[in-house]
This record gives sequence, structure tokens and C-alpha cells, in this order.
Amino acid sequence: MKWLYSGLAATGVALSVGIALAAPTSNSAANAENSSPIYGVTIPDGYRQWELVAPSLQGPPLNELRAILGNPTALKAYRSNDTRPFPDGTILAKLAWKHMQSPEAASALVPADSTTVQFMVKDSKKYAATGGWGFGRFINGKPADVSQHETCFACHQALVKDRDYVFTRLAR
Amino acid sequence: MKWLYSGLAATGVALSVGIALAAPTSNSAANAENSSPIYGVTIPDGYRQWELVAPSLQGPPLNELRAILGNPTALKAYRSNDTRPFPDGTILAKLAWKHMQSPEAASALVPADSTTVQFMVKDSKKYAATGGWGFGRFINGKPADVSQHETCFACHQALVKDRDYVFTRLAR
Repeated sequence: MKWLYSGLAATGVALSVGIALAAPTSNSAANAENSSPIYGVTIPDGYRQWELVAPSLQGPPLNELRAILGNPTALKAYRSNDTRPFPDGTILAKLAWKHMQSPEAASALVPADSTTVQFMVKDSKKYAATGGWGFGRFINGKPADVSQHETCFACHQALVKDRDYVFTRLAR
Repeated sequence: MKWLYSGLAATGVALSVGIALAAPTSNSAANAENSSPIYGVTIPDGYRQWELVAPSLQGPPLNELRAILGNPTALKAYRSNDTRPFPDGTILAKLAWKHMQSPEAASALVPADSTTVQFMVKDSKKYAATGGWGFGRFINGKPADVSQHETCFACHQALVKDRDYVFTRLAR
């Protein structure tokens, strides 16, 4: 039943571009392969060029250096302090790397291998059941599994519901 | 006296828009107030919108979270691995904040107050004596003193001469 809904959704999207689909099933397969389970979030084009919201460090056991970037809608909201709620169209990207000691500066931790790239996409109607946010977690460009995506909203809801479910403040 | 310089500086700015300067010394005073000692580096417009090169964490005693951003010339060089040397026109910005435990996530360190914003500007002729780089360290928008700027190149020269004096690698 879930698969059927995905197929219907993909057909709707394709038709909305004004072209009838000849092979909707292959299109569904492509979407499913590249979009996050539960939410259907895909990796936005050009996100690595987005503006920095803030860096952070995640302690054990993850030991990650992170950078949260935001699309222009996100940064406009941050700069005007108009973030409760963030407007529809906001996308936040969390880039995470294992950290390691700098080879040249003993007192510094710097990024090692990438671990995940994660996104929060604000669409208050589409994602009404999860605070208006859709989530996507990607490892080497591919979406993580259902069980990982089931943890996203639960944690944001438990800890930062009053901040429109967003942890990161703008580093000024 | 400070007030007098401010007045002269304002006059200098106005005159410089297409009119020959009657009092070049007043313009020098304005530059000295906003540019770094030794190097004459000023804060580049729009640097906070530049692309992220990498985040990092500086250990005790500084305890800073940092983000290194780069202008388009810098990122083009990083992406093509053409960084030894970086081309003239490269500017790297290092933003630094004191770190603190996240109010909402016990395992995370996040930015607190800004400490410094620092720049490396590549101009192989102008800064030939310091590896082609000019340095600027700013605190609350004002340049730090001479003694602080005397430490910049010495450290980069001692530790990362073979990397065109640049510590930060692109986080991919």
C-alpha cells in the first residue's frame, strides 16, 4: 500500500510538469532510490554553496564536526529573527564529518571523512504531521533507511519543539 | 582628536567618489582605523555569505568553534586542487566563536560569543615578504594591534609553509 502511494505521488508530480508518463514505474523506482523514506526528501542542488548558519561539535560516540548551512529563505528568517515558525521553503542542511586532530596544529580538531548529510525541509502542509518538517539523511549520496528516519522528528520534537523543532541558532 | 579624525574620514570618503583628494592624509587616517596594521587588510564586503571551506574546533585555552569561509577564487582553487600556490585574489575568512554546551543537546558544543574574524588575502607582489599573504585580525569589527599581527605569518610559516601557508583543507 505504501508502494502504491509512492507510485501515485510520482505520477502526480510528473503530470504536473505537463507531460504524460510513459513508464511511471521506472520513475517511481528512481525517486525511491534517491529520496528519503517516509518524507521523500531529495538532496537539493547546490546546497554546499549555501550560507553557513553555524558550526558545531558532536561529542562521543559520534565525534563529529558539523556545519549547518541554510538556503536563502532560511537565512532571511534567521537574520530577521522570524524563525518561529520558519517559513515554507526553508531548507537546512547539516553536514557532518568524523573529526581528527589537525596534522599541523596539535590543538585543533578538523574534519575527516564525511559521515552524513542531512536536510530539514519546511512545508507546513505536506509535513503537517511532523511539525511542518520533512527530514532526509544521506550517506554517500544515498538515503539512509526507514529506521534512521523514524528517529529524526522524535528527537527534534522532544528537545526543540518550542524553537520550531530547530536546534541551530545563527552564529553571528 | 578621535572625533576630528572621524570628521576628516567622512570628508575623505565623500571626496573619493570621483573627486581628487584635497587632504590625502585624512584618507590615510580613515584607512588606518579600519585596516590591519602591517598589512592594510580590510574586512571584505559580504564575506559572511562566502562558501564554507571547513569547520574546526580549537582546544584550550582558546576553546573556540571556527568556520573557514572562502571567496569564489579560493573555492575554485580548492575544488581543482590547485592550491599550491593559491591564485592572487584568494581570500580566506576565519570566523571564531567561544564554544558552549548546547542548551538543548548535552552532547553538542555550539557557538557562543564571537571572538575574532580573521582574513588571509593573497597578493603575491604586495605581500611578497610574507609568502604572498596579507593578514587581518578583527575584534568587533576593529583591527587588532600590531603585536597580534606579528604572530600571524610566523605561525603559518612554521607549520604550513609547504601548503602555501594555509592550514585548512576543503571539507568534502
